[in-house]
Amino acid sequence: MLRRDLHKAVLALRNMSSEAGLASYNYETLKVTTPRDHVFHVELNRPEKRNAMNRAFWREMALCFRALSDDINCRAVVISGAGKMFTSGIDLTDLTGVFLQEEEDDPARIAWNIRKKIKDYQESFSVIEKCTKPVIAAIHNACIGGGVDLITACDIRYCSQDAWYQVKEVDVGLAADVGTLQRLPKVIGNRSLVNELAFTARKMLSDEALSSGLVSRVFPDKSSLLLASLDLASEIASRSPVAVQGTKINLIYSRDHSVQESLDYMANWNMSMLQTQDIMKSAQSVLEKKSPKDIRFSKL
Amino acid sequence: MLRRDLHKAVLALRNMSSEAGLASYNYETLKVTTPRDHVFHVELNRPEKRNAMNRAFWREMALCFRALSDDINCRAVVISGAGKMFTSGIDLTDLTGVFLQEEEDDPARIAWNIRKKIKDYQESFSVIEKCTKPVIAAIHNACIGGGVDLITACDIRYCSQDAWYQVKEVDVGLAADVGTLQRLPKVIGNRSLVNELAFTARKMLSDEALSSGLVSRVFPDKSSLLLASLDLASEIASRSPVAVQGTKINLIYSRDHSVQESLDYMANWNMSMLQTQDIMKSAQSVLEKKSPKDIRFSKL
Amino acid sequence: MLRRDLHKAVLALRNMSSEAGLASYNYETLKVTTPRDHVFHVELNRPEKRNAMNRAFWREMALCFRALSDDINCRAVVISGAGKMFTSGIDLTDLTGVFLQEEEDDPARIAWNIRKKIKDYQESFSVIEKCTKPVIAAIHNACIGGGVDLITACDIRYCSQDAWYQVKEVDVGLAADVGTLQRLPKVIGNRSLVNELAFTARKMLSDEALSSGLVSRVFPDKSSLLLASLDLASEIASRSPVAVQGTKINLIYSRDHSVQESLDYMANWNMSMLQTQDIMKSAQSVLEKKSPKDIRFSKL
Amino acid sequence: MLRRDLHKAVLALRNMSSEAGLASYNYETLKVTTPRDHVFHVELNRPEKRNAMNRAFWREMALCFRALSDDINCRAVVISGAGKMFTSGIDLTDLTGVFLQEEEDDPARIAWNIRKKIKDYQESFSVIEKCTKPVIAAIHNACIGGGVDLITACDIRYCSQDAWYQVKEVDVGLAADVGTLQRLPKVIGNRSLVNELAFTARKMLSDEALSSGLVSRVFPDKSSLLLASLDLASEIASRSPVAVQGTKINLIYSRDHSVQESLDYMANWNMSMLQTQDIMKSAQSVLEKKSPKDIRFSKL
Amino acid sequence: MLRRDLHKAVLALRNMSSEAGLASYNYETLKVTTPRDHVFHVELNRPEKRNAMNRAFWREMALCFRALSDDINCRAVVISGAGKMFTSGIDLTDLTGVFLQEEEDDPARIAWNIRKKIKDYQESFSVIEKCTKPVIAAIHNACIGGGVDLITACDIRYCSQDAWYQVKEVDVGLAADVGTLQRLPKVIGNRSLVNELAFTARKMLSDEALSSGLVSRVFPDKSSLLLASLDLASEIASRSPVAVQGTKINLIYSRDHSVQESLDYMANWNMSMLQTQDIMKSAQSVLEKKSPKDIRFSKL
Amino acid sequence: MLRRDLHKAVLALRNMSSEAGLASYNYETLKVTTPRDHVFHVELNRPEKRNAMNRAFWREMALCFRALSDDINCRAVVISGAGKMFTSGIDLTDLTGVFLQEEEDDPARIAWNIRKKIKDYQESFSVIEKCTKPVIAAIHNACIGGGVDLITACDIRYCSQDAWYQVKEVDVGLAADVGTLQRLPKVIGNRSLVNELAFTARKMLSDEALSSGLVSRVFPDKSSLLLASLDLASEIASRSPVAVQGTKINLIYSRDHSVQESLDYMANWNMSMLQTQDIMKSAQSVLEKKSPKDIRFSKL
Repeated sequence: MLRRDLHKAVLALRNMSSEAGLASYNYETLKVTTPRDHVFHVELNRPEKRNAMNRAFWREMALCFRALSDDINCRAVVISGAGKMFTSGIDLTDLTGVFLQEEEDDPARIAWNIRKKIKDYQESFSVIEKCTKPVIAAIHNACIGGGVDLITACDIRYCSQDAWYQVKEVDVGLAADVGTLQRLPKVIGNRSLVNELAFTARKMLSDEALSSGLVSRVFPDKSSLLLASLDLASEIASRSPVAVQGTKINLIYSRDHSVQESLDYMANWNMSMLQTQDIMKSAQSVLEKKSPKDIRFSKL
Repeated sequence: MLRRDLHKAVLALRNMSSEAGLASYNYETLKVTTPRDHVFHVELNRPEKRNAMNRAFWREMALCFRALSDDINCRAVVISGAGKMFTSGIDLTDLTGVFLQEEEDDPARIAWNIRKKIKDYQESFSVIEKCTKPVIAAIHNACIGGGVDLITACDIRYCSQDAWYQVKEVDVGLAADVGTLQRLPKVIGNRSLVNELAFTARKMLSDEALSSGLVSRVFPDKSSLLLASLDLASEIASRSPVAVQGTKINLIYSRDHSVQESLDYMANWNMSMLQTQDIMKSAQSVLEKKSPKDIRFSKL
Repeated sequence: MLRRDLHKAVLALRNMSSEAGLASYNYETLKVTTPRDHVFHVELNRPEKRNAMNRAFWREMALCFRALSDDINCRAVVISGAGKMFTSGIDLTDLTGVFLQEEEDDPARIAWNIRKKIKDYQESFSVIEKCTKPVIAAIHNACIGGGVDLITACDIRYCSQDAWYQVKEVDVGLAADVGTLQRLPKVIGNRSLVNELAFTARKMLSDEALSSGLVSRVFPDKSSLLLASLDLASEIASRSPVAVQGTKINLIYSRDHSVQESLDYMANWNMSMLQTQDIMKSAQSVLEKKSPKDIRFSKL
Repeated sequence: MLRRDLHKAVLALRNMSSEAGLASYNYETLKVTTPRDHVFHVELNRPEKRNAMNRAFWREMALCFRALSDDINCRAVVISGAGKMFTSGIDLTDLTGVFLQEEEDDPARIAWNIRKKIKDYQESFSVIEKCTKPVIAAIHNACIGGGVDLITACDIRYCSQDAWYQVKEVDVGLAADVGTLQRLPKVIGNRSLVNELAFTARKMLSDEALSSGLVSRVFPDKSSLLLASLDLASEIASRSPVAVQGTKINLIYSRDHSVQESLDYMANWNMSMLQTQDIMKSAQSVLEKKSPKDIRFSKL
Repeated sequence: MLRRDLHKAVLALRNMSSEAGLASYNYETLKVTTPRDHVFHVELNRPEKRNAMNRAFWREMALCFRALSDDINCRAVVISGAGKMFTSGIDLTDLTGVFLQEEEDDPARIAWNIRKKIKDYQESFSVIEKCTKPVIAAIHNACIGGGVDLITACDIRYCSQDAWYQVKEVDVGLAADVGTLQRLPKVIGNRSLVNELAFTARKMLSDEALSSGLVSRVFPDKSSLLLASLDLASEIASRSPVAVQGTKINLIYSRDHSVQESLDYMANWNMSMLQTQDIMKSAQSVLEKKSPKDIRFSKL
Repeated sequence: MLRRDLHKAVLALRNMSSEAGLASYNYETLKVTTPRDHVFHVELNRPEKRNAMNRAFWREMALCFRALSDDINCRAVVISGAGKMFTSGIDLTDLTGVFLQEEEDDPARIAWNIRKKIKDYQESFSVIEKCTKPVIAAIHNACIGGGVDLITACDIRYCSQDAWYQVKEVDVGLAADVGTLQRLPKVIGNRSLVNELAFTARKMLSDEALSSGLVSRVFPDKSSLLLASLDLASEIASRSPVAVQGTKINLIYSRDHSVQESLDYMANWNMSMLQTQDIMKSAQSVLEKKSPKDIRFSKL
């Protein structure tokens, strides 16, 4: 009890520092590093548990990506799994604790509590989308259940040859409720395949992931995958953060709105953003045929 | 008076039998069988007319899929065509009768009647979507006009090597109005191709259907196609019906709503569905490494 | 000053003639011809400037496609680029003039003016969508920046082997605001790829454009590309204009609405359109196994 | 087999009679008469039970209003309550039977069944909205619980001085789920009042119903109320059915869509409806200063 | 013919001057004056024809309000009717010419043309909404048919004691299609009354217009009405145009979107608009307790 | 600096206790008491500053209402102002600090920061809506600017005779951006009035607030107002929390969705909520003609 309170107090203090731009990014289940200029690398970090998603994970994902979104040193993020696989998905034992050991016996009140928890869990992946910096998922080996929910909330997906995917939820008696059914059909343009995966929980290998568009590139192994993902992140991080982050916000808006609404949103967005000095800096760099990496943009 | 009472009695009997899982499924244009546990097979059954869609067909589709949706013995459906092709599409002679031989001469009243009929016909395919059990289309040889409308309302599409598709409507002077223009662009992620097919009525062969994602698998011939479709249906039927049907309802909801709305819908859905006993049964089976086929789920 | 007024007066007179069905289609930046029956060919026509999009271009695109939409002689349109490439995109010098040399110094009023201009520019491509006749983009060599915005507003995309695409905007410090971020994700079903292109401005070659579905066919060179595009346009132009244009209107409506809303829209549409004589003409032609090219449809 | 054929025969007969305008309108809980030309009067007809809504009522409402919508002799409907009050709302005993005496013990399956029943009950009032003929509610004395759900689905509400309203559901432990929470806020423009009524189940008298806009007129007693309601229905019935029914369909569409979408819907609607002969008949009648009651419109 | 061409050429020239900020506002059917600083007064000006809406009117409304929207000297608009009434609505003879004297005999092509015309007419009132300056309708005596469509597109409605309103369309056999059915239910919060007016074409007098909220104030006669309307317009014109026009744009957006969407739109809007100098000017004026009329805002 | 950190640490600890169900509700700018069973009273508590909204207020509103929403002891909330008025609105000095003293000089980055702050401020009132317990605003004397934004986010509004309202923002050069323009038009059904208030910043007195429906009751003075508000809250608090909170959630959903969508949402909601024991408890109490206050509901 006491220990938990202390832990929470520390957490609170960390949040304070985060607001001051000094986010420490210390988590139990995530490892955060900065391998490149303005590029953050987030690793699912319970390799001994096959990166299974436990309660700490759900809480820390939300904290981590909120911090990254506010961190002016961060311009692009790579997320990968430590150890032999990306993730085995939700920690079933843990889940039982969360959803099924209710003291309550009124079905309406049980339902009320379940809804609250689902919404919390959904938020743990929606933060990836709300983080205005592009997030690249680098997937190797198994990406099961909650793993698919996670990667569909990312902006770009790369994987290694040995990667495989499983929309596992139906196998444990439930409809996937933290993002897969909502985002997967908008991520790949093959509805027959999406339905097949969701109804049968069959595995999908990397070649089918590539041909269906779940991932945009496949690499021979984990190390080449990580290298390419970080290179891509560096490419993105070298562009104007005003341009890149505005692009992300508008791409996500467009997914959920009509073309006409999205054009109007875009016009409102750019009526301020086109006043940025980044345009002059960028345009000059283009005319001078320099690399964008040589431009110094102000923080955002 | 008496007539009406009789009618009501009959209606009540039908409802009873339906609730008891004894729907008789006898139709002129459709043949319904149960080749596997909890798997229903619906065949378009006017082979001598190339399964052309006549008035009886439109009416019976609605009746059949409403019954399947309510039938607690049904957990997955395969739909295919009897004879040499899937379907030649709408029965043109029949159509003429329906739409063009109006006694009416007021254009507004003709329009009113046409609208009513279009809505009826649309409903004959929308019932596939409203049926909460997954529906697999197994297509061989020709799938023309109304056939494309039909299969785009199904959840999964498999076909044989000899299958071909034609959005025929423009050739007979009309814009396809029972589903193709509405669903095809949401079924496959290649808008240029969709438009080309719809504007020119050109044939698309099975390989292009596969590469574009209209179907998720192609088989050498009709018998292997049917076998694989029934196997897939069996796979689905072996999972928790609470999980499978909830998955279908939420996948269709997601297609038509923003991610945020869809996540909220999902949370409301699962606040009751996660209270199901199926989760415990399924989770235990996973832990014991049994096949889902060995679990006995209650009816739904 | 005077010259500009005169130019405008001429423009106004041309608009008048356009209303009278005698559109002259004379533009500085576009060349319009009629190579086939009912088929119009619009060429981006500043080859010496790599078809860069200047102020005249934005204004003339709107005029041209509004005229084509109203022109009863036009049933299908091909758009291509004169000279060595499709287009190098927006004319950067010109852009600077438009967006950045404000006399205004109140940021709100600058924003107000920028918004107005963005909306004007967006309209210059939205007219392609509002033009009820199908528009085929035939792309060769470079298609950069504004070029991608343009082609995503077209209905069908064909290209030559040497074509390449670049969502260039992020390189010059801005989020693409005249259509790419809004339409590209609805044109191709591979979101990971769309995001990658938009965040990095990397080039995409014709083979990736084909496999991702950005284009539906690739041809060896520009001349075979143009030939095939005109053939396709002819195919379309030979069908009932009531059927073809109704198809376009409903396909675009469906993209932005739920299936249920779209079916309802379709029913309202066809309650008048199914009363057309074109159906009888077309059906008869089908029964007599004639080519649609032999039918004479009334103007639309 | 035989049973089913009989059923089909009966069904066919019913459809025939319905199409021929000979719907019999015999119900246990509703009394249907035709007091004026083209005006139908539907009475809630269980006065001895204070018109409490039992299972038969829910089923018959759906049947009755579907028949009225299809009945070409019907152009306007008045709905009122037989006996001393409009309705005491849902029959609580009956409700218990429907919702709570499940044999099922899996909370997910109970939920599934409840959802199906709620949707059925919702449909029993939505049919009023789907009936294309205007429906006038004439309310006297008590209008409780389900009664409020019912009248908010009507187009026009008149009441007598002694009428009072109660959104009763919260008093029996549930959120109103057959229309009040969905329609009442769109029927009256005073959100604070709507919320107060829904949260407290307090009674609202006729004067507040008038000032808040729930009803548009109040009459001294039931007989003057009925007379005025029938007169209003006659007024409506004397207008072109093409105009009146198109007006209803578009008013309901507008409630649920943006102004821009609604204008577009309207334009599509009237592109056929403005071709009606009713316009000439009506316009001529206006010019000749005749009453619309003297025009003979074709059936609709 | 020639005369018409000349007229059009003049019109075109006028449009040119309008673009140069020198709009002349000369129309056949509208009289435009500037009675107060930054306040424009638009009068329906065919008093001898009871301000009936003819073809010229529909065209000129669009031209006039587009010019007002762009005119930096205009900050508020009053619209009223010259002569003895506001307007008798659409010119029936004219309408007949427009909609019914088709040379066409294909019902689909007639429909196509009708739709185009309806959309043009709708636009003639939608321009009032698109004009970013607040528009006040000052209504006296009769406001019939198209008049109701017009005033519901205005932002504020004042009237004189003798004003009366009639949703006339149903009397001439058609559903109102240029705005009333779309906007009236969003303008007043009494749906029962809206429906009654639309289904019966009964007259509504000024007191009911006030109590129902169609108008927000009633004045004894036309001259006091006009004075108050111009005073109100002056009040509005004295505020920051950045604030006032942003308010209009966001109020209209909110009408058609959810609260959450509207808050997001607002935030995007104000991220540039809050950078205006008008805030400092206005805040200082408030602190110094000066009238806003003494502040000099830059043009917008 | 140090003091601020300490303050934040205390805040964090308080949040911890809140999660444990022991929310202390200690704030600088809000005073929270529990005058009745399950009824919380929140007072704006800077009477010496006329309850002007400063930075602490915006932060504490969010904390307070999130805590109330989670507090199982709270079933209804009254919000009022301490001292001589409800609130004078936003603290202008404070605002200047927040929005205008940017160190940044890039207009795009200033815009980015402003947007973030607006969204924070919007959230400070949206929490009232997200709090699932009904919130009653009890308004006396002045309710200016931000005050109107605040009360439109409440569920029910009561006021005293001396209350007056002012949509002040336009007077200080900005469009109201924390809720008024988004919610006021959905709270009262008189759009002409809403626009007038927003464009002119004129005062509205309590009688007009009543007749327009902004408030549902007016009381002679502050003490009778508070008494009635607390009585109303008690009434609400005596009902089943499952019923009341489900009602609030569905009423807010309905405001922003079509009737059909809202009915579907309702059905999904009640499929679990109708399984509550509260229904039996409530129904029994009704049958026994007891007051709901005598029922003991489980916490929610």
